[in-house]
Amino acid sequence: MARVVVDVMLKPEILDPQGQAIARKLPQMNFEGVTGVRQGKRFELDLEGPADEAALDRIRAIAGTLLANPVIENFEVRVLDE
Amino acid sequence: MARVVVDVMLKPEILDPQGQAIARKLPQMNFEGVTGVRQGKRFELDLEGPADEAALDRIRAIAGTLLANPVIENFEVRVLDE
Repeated sequence: MARVVVDVMLKPEILDPQGQAIARKLPQMNFEGVTGVRQGKRFELDLEGPADEAALDRIRAIAGTLLANPVIENFEVRVLDE
Repeated sequence: MARVVVDVMLKPEILDPQGQAIARKLPQMNFEGVTGVRQGKRFELDLEGPADEAALDRIRAIAGTLLANPVIENFEVRVLDE
Protein backbone atom coordinates (compact mmCIF):
# COMPACT_ATOMS: atom_id res chain seq x y z
CA MET A 1 0.00 0.00 0.00
CA ALA A 2 1.43 3.36 -1.01
CA ARG A 3 0.75 6.71 0.57
CA VAL A 4 0.68 9.83 -1.57
CA VAL A 5 0.73 13.39 -0.28
CA VAL A 6 -1.00 16.28 -2.02
CA ASP A 7 0.14 19.70 -0.80
CA VAL A 8 -2.21 22.55 -1.68
CA MET A 9 -1.04 26.15 -1.22
CA LEU A 10 -2.55 29.45 -2.28
CA LYS A 11 -0.79 30.91 -5.31
CA PRO A 12 1.88 33.46 -4.27
CA GLU A 13 -0.13 36.35 -5.71
CA ILE A 14 -3.24 35.43 -3.68
CA LEU A 15 -3.66 37.15 -0.30
CA ASP A 16 -3.51 34.74 2.65
CA PRO A 17 -5.29 36.35 5.63
CA GLN A 18 -4.95 33.23 7.80
CA GLY A 19 -1.19 33.16 7.34
CA GLN A 20 -0.97 36.90 7.93
CA ALA A 21 -2.92 36.60 11.17
CA ILE A 22 -0.46 33.97 12.41
CA ALA A 23 2.55 36.05 11.33
CA ARG A 24 1.17 39.09 13.16
CA LYS A 25 0.54 37.07 16.30
CA LEU A 26 4.06 35.61 16.59
CA PRO A 27 5.93 38.71 17.89
CA GLN A 28 3.22 39.23 20.53
CA MET A 29 4.00 35.69 21.70
CA ASN A 30 7.74 36.50 21.78
CA PHE A 31 8.55 34.46 18.70
CA GLU A 32 10.86 36.63 16.62
CA GLY A 33 12.56 35.95 13.30
CA VAL A 34 9.61 34.75 11.20
CA THR A 35 9.05 37.11 8.28
CA GLY A 36 6.07 35.42 6.66
CA VAL A 37 3.56 32.62 7.08
CA ARG A 38 1.41 30.92 4.44
CA GLN A 39 -1.27 28.42 5.36
CA GLY A 40 -2.30 25.61 3.08
CA LYS A 41 -3.72 22.12 3.11
CA ARG A 42 -2.12 18.71 3.15
CA PHE A 43 -3.89 15.56 2.06
CA GLU A 44 -2.67 12.01 2.61
CA LEU A 45 -4.16 9.47 0.21
CA ASP A 46 -3.75 5.75 0.72
CA LEU A 47 -3.63 3.76 -2.50
CA GLU A 48 -4.77 0.20 -3.03
CA GLY A 49 -1.91 -0.50 -5.41
CA PRO A 50 1.54 0.93 -6.10
CA ALA A 51 2.17 4.64 -6.64
CA ASP A 52 3.13 4.23 -10.29
CA GLU A 53 2.83 6.88 -12.99
CA ALA A 54 -0.76 5.90 -13.81
CA ALA A 55 -1.79 6.18 -10.16
CA LEU A 56 -0.05 9.55 -9.80
CA ASP A 57 -1.82 10.82 -12.93
CA ARG A 58 -5.09 9.82 -11.31
CA ILE A 59 -4.12 11.59 -8.09
CA ARG A 60 -3.23 14.73 -10.06
CA ALA A 61 -6.70 14.67 -11.65
CA ILE A 62 -8.27 14.27 -8.20
CA ALA A 63 -6.16 17.12 -6.83
CA GLY A 64 -7.07 19.45 -9.68
CA THR A 65 -10.80 18.82 -9.41
CA LEU A 66 -11.56 17.97 -5.79
CA LEU A 67 -8.68 18.93 -3.48
CA ALA A 68 -7.48 22.22 -4.93
CA ASN A 69 -9.06 25.19 -6.63
CA PRO A 70 -6.68 25.70 -9.58
CA VAL A 71 -7.83 29.30 -10.00
CA ILE A 72 -6.26 30.38 -6.71
CA GLU A 73 -4.24 27.36 -5.53
CA ASN A 74 -1.21 25.36 -6.65
CA PHE A 75 -0.82 21.72 -5.74
CA GLU A 76 2.03 19.28 -5.61
CA VAL A 77 1.79 15.49 -5.60
CA ARG A 78 4.53 13.31 -4.12
CA VAL A 79 4.94 9.78 -2.87
CA LEU A 80 5.60 9.57 0.86
CA ASP A 81 8.71 7.55 1.60
CA GLU A 82 8.43 6.10 5.06
CA MET B 1 16.34 33.28 3.97
CA ALA B 2 15.20 29.80 4.90
CA ARG B 3 11.75 28.33 4.50
CA VAL B 4 10.44 25.84 7.01
CA VAL B 5 7.37 23.66 6.58
CA VAL B 6 5.12 22.56 9.44
CA ASP B 7 2.79 19.71 8.57
CA VAL B 8 -0.14 19.27 10.94
CA MET B 9 -2.25 16.11 10.75
CA LEU B 10 -4.96 14.72 13.00
CA LYS B 11 -3.68 11.88 15.17
CA PRO B 12 -4.46 8.49 13.61
CA GLU B 13 -7.02 7.66 16.32
CA ILE B 14 -8.96 10.90 15.72
CA LEU B 15 -11.88 10.72 13.29
CA ASP B 16 -11.41 12.84 10.16
CA PRO B 17 -14.84 13.60 8.65
CA GLN B 18 -13.39 15.91 5.97
CA GLY B 19 -11.06 13.19 4.72
CA GLN B 20 -13.86 10.63 4.85
CA ALA B 21 -16.14 12.88 2.81
CA ILE B 22 -13.46 13.16 0.12
CA ALA B 23 -12.80 9.40 0.17
CA ARG B 24 -16.53 8.70 -0.24
CA LYS B 25 -16.82 11.14 -3.12
CA LEU B 26 -13.97 9.67 -5.20
CA PRO B 27 -15.71 6.52 -6.54
CA GLN B 28 -18.71 8.63 -7.57
CA MET B 29 -16.30 10.69 -9.65
CA ASN B 30 -14.86 7.52 -11.19
CA PHE B 31 -11.60 7.68 -9.25
CA GLU B 32 -10.93 4.16 -8.00
CA GLY B 33 -8.07 2.75 -5.98
CA VAL B 34 -7.93 5.23 -3.10
CA THR B 35 -8.64 3.46 0.18
CA GLY B 36 -8.36 6.38 2.58
CA VAL B 37 -7.94 10.15 2.75
CA ARG B 38 -6.75 12.27 5.66
CA GLN B 39 -6.88 16.05 5.53
CA GLY B 40 -4.44 18.23 7.44
CA LYS B 41 -2.76 21.59 7.32
CA ARG B 42 0.52 22.77 5.89
CA PHE B 43 2.25 25.95 7.00
CA GLU B 44 5.20 27.57 5.27
CA LEU B 45 7.24 29.88 7.51
CA ASP B 46 9.89 32.20 6.13
CA LEU B 47 12.77 32.82 8.50
CA GLU B 48 14.90 35.92 8.75
CA GLY B 49 18.03 33.88 9.43
CA PRO B 50 19.20 30.33 8.81
CA ALA B 51 17.16 27.27 9.76
CA ASP B 52 19.58 26.14 12.45
CA GLU B 53 18.73 24.02 15.48
CA ALA B 54 17.80 27.08 17.59
CA ALA B 55 15.43 28.35 14.90
CA LEU B 56 13.85 24.92 14.50
CA ASP B 57 13.34 24.66 18.27
CA ARG B 58 11.54 28.00 18.09
CA ILE B 59 9.40 26.76 15.21
CA ARG B 60 8.52 23.62 17.16
CA ALA B 61 7.36 25.79 20.05
CA ILE B 62 5.26 27.87 17.63
CA ALA B 63 3.80 24.72 16.08
CA GLY B 64 2.89 23.21 19.44
CA THR B 65 1.16 26.35 20.72
CA LEU B 66 -0.25 28.19 17.71
CA LEU B 67 -0.34 25.95 14.62
CA ALA B 68 -1.39 22.58 16.02
CA ASN B 69 -3.61 21.36 18.81
CA PRO B 70 -1.37 18.74 20.45
CA VAL B 71 -4.37 17.04 22.04
CA ILE B 72 -5.71 15.85 18.70
CA GLU B 73 -2.97 16.69 16.17
CA ASN B 74 0.60 15.67 15.42
CA PHE B 75 2.99 18.05 13.73
CA GLU B 76 6.26 17.70 11.86
CA VAL B 77 8.80 20.44 11.21
CA ARG B 78 11.20 20.25 8.27
CA VAL B 79 13.38 22.60 6.29
CA LEU B 80 12.27 23.02 2.70
CA ASP B 81 15.09 22.35 0.28
CA GLU B 82 14.45 24.26 -2.89
